[in-house]
Amino acid sequence: MRFELQSGIPVLERTPIVLNQWFKNLGDEWLFENEGGESWSPYYIVGHLVYGEITDWIPRAKLMLEHPNEVQTFISFDRFAQLEMSRGKTMDDQLEDFAEWRIKNIETLKSWNLTDEQFALKANHPELGEVTLRQLLASWVVHDLSHIAQISRVMAKQYRHEVGPWREFMPLLTRY
Amino acid sequence: MRFELQSGIPVLERTPIVLNQWFKNLGDEWLFENEGGESWSPYYIVGHLVYGEITDWIPRAKLMLEHPNEVQTFISFDRFAQLEMSRGKTMDDQLEDFAEWRIKNIETLKSWNLTDEQFALKANHPELGEVTLRQLLASWVVHDLSHIAQISRVMAKQYRHEVGPWREFMPLLTRY
Repeated sequence: MRFELQSGIPVLERTPIVLNQWFKNLGDEWLFENEGGESWSPYYIVGHLVYGEITDWIPRAKLMLEHPNEVQTFISFDRFAQLEMSRGKTMDDQLEDFAEWRIKNIETLKSWNLTDEQFALKANHPELGEVTLRQLLASWVVHDLSHIAQISRVMAKQYRHEVGPWREFMPLLTRY
Repeated sequence: MRFELQSGIPVLERTPIVLNQWFKNLGDEWLFENEGGESWSPYYIVGHLVYGEITDWIPRAKLMLEHPNEVQTFISFDRFAQLEMSRGKTMDDQLEDFAEWRIKNIETLKSWNLTDEQFALKANHPELGEVTLRQLLASWVVHDLSHIAQISRVMAKQYRHEVGPWREFMPLLTRY
């Protein structure tokens, strides 16, 4: 399936709504547990999504659009800088932040009225090498979906001992 | 984390709401594609969830509660019988069916006011052997979460070629 704005944008628009319905006022026991070690909790994952809205997807797209004639190099995404930004915020605060930023970012994306020529603009990703604007935008969608899957997995694992023999039918419980 | 009604039920209650927000009026291109071969589309997965509400979780729990003194054997879950039930239904129809059945089933679960003694009731699962009511109910929750993760993965894979080099950062795209 080809990435197109009219099919990609509805998925991007729905992610904060889905997360809000899932987590607003849900008990803390589901928000802060992770998969062990330094792995991420649902709370941390939502913080990561907010941080991506502010520093990653749209700023990178903007950089490409503003320099159509010289290939730019993205600033590395700092996976840990979100800790500072999340300080003192509740899950509900983060869900609201995510929804607000996402709405603003989708408005920006729509306002660009991107052409096929612009979709083909290139940049250098510090770790991945040459990428296009189309790939960036498709990755934004897949990034949302990856983290929804991750959140499901983190929550499911909280019951890994409780399901007993059903564990055999639930590969999600032993995956990372 | 121990399975408890007060933490498990909110997750069960939210699944149809989450799916509704995610898929209601979403374009067909996201509903009917799968991961290749005989794998499941989001439409098929929602049909599977409806079918589970009607034939699996609560009927099995009921069987256990109605025969506290003799261990019952569950009827095998027919993974393909849902095809007949889904015939002619749109995704939105299935989302509504799922929401209605889930509300009804959670009402039933709450009305039982289960005791610790009942949580320990046993049954024979035709493939897994001896299971308890607590394990059945915990598995109901994990089953929801597993299918949310699966739906995310199926959707993500529709852009597997579109993300280009980002594929390296997205293990979901090469997983089953």
